[in-house]
Amino acid sequence: MSTPFAAWAEQVQADMEVVLDRHLPPASALPTKLHQAMRYAVLGGGKRVRPLLVFAAGTLFDAPRDALERSAAAVEMIHAYSLVHDDMPCMDDDDLRRGKPTVHRQFDEATALLVGDALQSQAFLVLSQGALAPDRKVAMLSQLAHAAGSLGMCGGQAVDLDAVGIALALPELEQMHRLKTGALLRVSVLLGAYAGKALQADEQAALDSYADAIGLAFQVVDDILDATADSATLGKTAGKDAAHNKPTYVSILGLQPSLALAEKLRQDAHHALQPFGEAAIRLRELADLIVQRKA
Amino acid sequence: MSTPFAAWAEQVQADMEVVLDRHLPPASALPTKLHQAMRYAVLGGGKRVRPLLVFAAGTLFDAPRDALERSAAAVEMIHAYSLVHDDMPCMDDDDLRRGKPTVHRQFDEATALLVGDALQSQAFLVLSQGALAPDRKVAMLSQLAHAAGSLGMCGGQAVDLDAVGIALALPELEQMHRLKTGALLRVSVLLGAYAGKALQADEQAALDSYADAIGLAFQVVDDILDATADSATLGKTAGKDAAHNKPTYVSILGLQPSLALAEKLRQDAHHALQPFGEAAIRLRELADLIVQRKA
Repeated sequence: MSTPFAAWAEQVQADMEVVLDRHLPPASALPTKLHQAMRYAVLGGGKRVRPLLVFAAGTLFDAPRDALERSAAAVEMIHAYSLVHDDMPCMDDDDLRRGKPTVHRQFDEATALLVGDALQSQAFLVLSQGALAPDRKVAMLSQLAHAAGSLGMCGGQAVDLDAVGIALALPELEQMHRLKTGALLRVSVLLGAYAGKALQADEQAALDSYADAIGLAFQVVDDILDATADSATLGKTAGKDAAHNKPTYVSILGLQPSLALAEKLRQDAHHALQPFGEAAIRLRELADLIVQRKA
Repeated sequence: MSTPFAAWAEQVQADMEVVLDRHLPPASALPTKLHQAMRYAVLGGGKRVRPLLVFAAGTLFDAPRDALERSAAAVEMIHAYSLVHDDMPCMDDDDLRRGKPTVHRQFDEATALLVGDALQSQAFLVLSQGALAPDRKVAMLSQLAHAAGSLGMCGGQAVDLDAVGIALALPELEQMHRLKTGALLRVSVLLGAYAGKALQADEQAALDSYADAIGLAFQVVDDILDATADSATLGKTAGKDAAHNKPTYVSILGLQPSLALAEKLRQDAHHALQPFGEAAIRLRELADLIVQRKA
């Protein structure tokens, strides 16, 4: 008994395997080891939260299918590259990702480094191609570059590195996650929307509020799951925040207040979508999914 | 007694410090350590060969100054990021770059990883901004992404990794360098030209021939210098190809034939520029510089 939302999400997840396969160089292309490793890092799993956001926002603004596929592939490649680099010995030194050996374990460290580098280039390449109007593409490429870089995702990871063993206050923790996870979730929503039309200021503001709320909610729930779930369920090493003495919502607020915060953010996300009415149903359901997920 | 070419090149090199400074986030922006490390990796030295190519090609096609500056900054950021990652322990494990400690030595490995990642994003961000027409920008972003990725620079590095200790034949060595170094040199020429106008097919072909020749020449000369110069002159560790048992033009062809090949490629580059007449003087002189440099 699959709900309409679950059926839609499963379809997007299945489609993304095909879409990502099509937008990655074939495994037979030289250099074959690099291309095999890039495909290993991207294909065959993952919750595809960012592509789901792209498609949900794109549906709201009648975006053409090819532009949504390219946007979804681009954000997922950026996300996958960040995981490959994040797992390396000089960062989190992790052995397990999505239930499989991490890229540097399956291949080697130098290959993992190049896989991440090449996936970032590939994301911009895929987004620069296709039939969308050039001015729309430029806006999307610019937003993606900003979200991925030192004032976005990479910046958040740098703050995270420096936070190990330090007692961050809640506003600092929130700022770190706004960059580290929030920036890419936000740009997923924006790319989906931009693929459909140029946004009015009030539409952009509403989507920003939504994206802010789900971005933070995603991280609060990640912290809750890291503290409460097991590695087999998560498909990655559980309990590593505590093991690495990293500040988390659970360590700062406690478990029950963290659960309450996640629920409040879910409601904030719903509230932000009110101007779009019934048409925003998939975005609302995604907020529910992000807060209520078990892995 | 500076020649007009030398004076022009020195001016571009000096200008690039200002241009790169302007197009990098300030050192005071959060996260400050990451931004300081990004600036350390990019500013204060380097031959700026790629920006020189951008400006020389741009002058030939009357490109606007801001578009040239952005193109030059973008290719130099891609180049700088590749050096930072290349120097890391899992790759070449090098301590010295441009006469200074490498980024992972001056800071730490995790920071070096993020510096490279963030510089790549910044390159695409800088190129996506500015006043150039959107269709031109999209073409340039697409070319840069292709040149940087798995079918360009990253692909060449992957081939290089796998070539250690293997007796590459000359065609394979050439193919590796076409990707590893040639792709980014070629795109430097193309971005400078595209910033001025959409190229005719014959103009594009002529520039491609030129870029192919100087790209290979650059690597042949690099191999010659690695075998013959000292670390102090190079500003990086000399003799490391032989130490790492890497195939080079010198190890395959011998020193004198390598010198003769470099000279032939210089003449090929001049020949390719004939359709552009006297206006291509800076590109010709750059071919001379690349072949006749001592470091």
